[in-house]
Amino acid sequence: MHTMIIGGAGMLGQKLAASLAGDTLTLVDVVEPPPFPNATTLAADLTDPATATALIARRPDVIFHLAAIVSGEAEADFSRGYAVNLDATRMLFDAIRHAGEHDGPYKPRVVFASSIAVFGAPFPARIPDDFHTTPRTSYGTQKAATELLLSDYSRRGIFDGIALRLPTICIRPGKPNRAASGFFSNILREPLAGLPAILPVPDTTRHWFTSPRTATGFFRHAATLDLALLGDNRALNMPGLSATVAEQIEALRSVAGQAAVDLIRREPDPTIAAIVVNWAQDFDTPRAHALGFRAERTFDEIIAVHLLDETGA
Amino acid sequence: MHTMIIGGAGMLGQKLAASLAGDTLTLVDVVEPPPFPNATTLAADLTDPATATALIARRPDVIFHLAAIVSGEAEADFSRGYAVNLDATRMLFDAIRHAGEHDGPYKPRVVFASSIAVFGAPFPARIPDDFHTTPRTSYGTQKAATELLLSDYSRRGIFDGIALRLPTICIRPGKPNRAASGFFSNILREPLAGLPAILPVPDTTRHWFTSPRTATGFFRHAATLDLALLGDNRALNMPGLSATVAEQIEALRSVAGQAAVDLIRREPDPTIAAIVVNWAQDFDTPRAHALGFRAERTFDEIIAVHLLDETGA
Repeated sequence: MHTMIIGGAGMLGQKLAASLAGDTLTLVDVVEPPPFPNATTLAADLTDPATATALIARRPDVIFHLAAIVSGEAEADFSRGYAVNLDATRMLFDAIRHAGEHDGPYKPRVVFASSIAVFGAPFPARIPDDFHTTPRTSYGTQKAATELLLSDYSRRGIFDGIALRLPTICIRPGKPNRAASGFFSNILREPLAGLPAILPVPDTTRHWFTSPRTATGFFRHAATLDLALLGDNRALNMPGLSATVAEQIEALRSVAGQAAVDLIRREPDPTIAAIVVNWAQDFDTPRAHALGFRAERTFDEIIAVHLLDETGA
Repeated sequence: MHTMIIGGAGMLGQKLAASLAGDTLTLVDVVEPPPFPNATTLAADLTDPATATALIARRPDVIFHLAAIVSGEAEADFSRGYAVNLDATRMLFDAIRHAGEHDGPYKPRVVFASSIAVFGAPFPARIPDDFHTTPRTSYGTQKAATELLLSDYSRRGIFDGIALRLPTICIRPGKPNRAASGFFSNILREPLAGLPAILPVPDTTRHWFTSPRTATGFFRHAATLDLALLGDNRALNMPGLSATVAEQIEALRSVAGQAAVDLIRREPDPTIAAIVVNWAQDFDTPRAHALGFRAERTFDEIIAVHLLDETGA
């Protein structure tokens, strides 16, 4: 089995690679991914039309496509967001099409990292599986348009694709970053390490989460699932945990005590609050559930996964 | 007011042009549209990157974009469908963006002809305004992806856009064609003219309709509406009439008598029946209704409009 991970230098790409020990791996990213056993690592510019052709010439059986310009950057740089998130992905899809047409039968599995950013307010209390995609960002637009192409190319038999609409990943390892969603991880990760963290939104803020380990599992499960079960709609809302900031903090308290909670400083930021108020809060995901996808049920679990995977505790 | 109609040689484009007598018109199509008073007529290849730039250099205030490769052809010719329906439209959108960036303020109104083909089965009994877009054809995929871009470009202030998801147009004037939906018009238009027609599906088949006159009115209304009322989701399900074939035939009987009905020959076609069973049957359209869009309420009205507009009766 030859597995290619595009976006292989990123946090999820690295975790996914680490979990696929038995496979022959090709890890691709804009910077060369760190070396891995059984892995070829490549630096590649996905916006160069020659890149997709060269990658597909390696004939991977499974392609995980995780590479993207993140939400904030896609909003700040219109052209670059469309070039990487929409056009480069389409070039990849078309390279698969051309390979199948010109070089004999080829129909890889394509697992695409989509996002709940395809959805936009106003929302029902729980977002159903058949809720419309009305993104409020260029990033969400690019993900939603790519999902449509992925379903059509799959229906056409060009590849066997699935798009996973991932919840916000929490607890994200590493340093605090300036992503608008960063605080959801910061207020747990930093206090767990004895460091201060800033909370820019009210404690009542509700959002939709899964751990890095579970998200990695979603990708592996999607790579082996019988995708005919999805029919022609290959975009799937992943399960997650709906929780408020207050519930996050209670979980922190139960794991690490009041001293950890006291490291959170409330510093309301109207700009971040105005962004977050338009984010999805809760989903009903019977379709993914029936296909065997499972997420955490409590924030205590999410914290436990973080301590185990990131600190070895 | 300078109004450009792309797809100006088509049935709806011609009717729209005829209804815009006061405007300065530019009619564009792949074949040169027939001459019109106050109108410039242009033949243009929309897939040529220079075309969009040249059209936008004329700085139309309102752009009606009706040009498309139709459903059957987009399914038969993958590359051409994507090139015209998705890529050429995006080139038009980007030409507007570049004109605004390089040649001073420019923010035209863009009215885009979308379709209920953005929706795919399984459907609820009545499709709500927030139902997801899961097209079952490449044509529907191209329309749905374009809608997403149109909403994002509008949110960004590049133009002021709206996408109208049109019902099936009935009664379509002209000769019978081989479109899978053609029979809905054929079984009325032909008997009204004393000619035979073939009905390939059961009388219980239900679908969603509007007349050419009403569809033309939708476009004109969309050109003057305050689009801020739509928020960031610029795709709008148009109102229509949900009717069965039996209801169509009853209306034909009441207008033209049993002799006309007797001209319909039932000739079941499993291929057409299999396509039509996946089409939308009924919608609930409160959003369009609140914005002032109105459709016919009976098939008698649709037939009366046809007789008045096409035969002068």
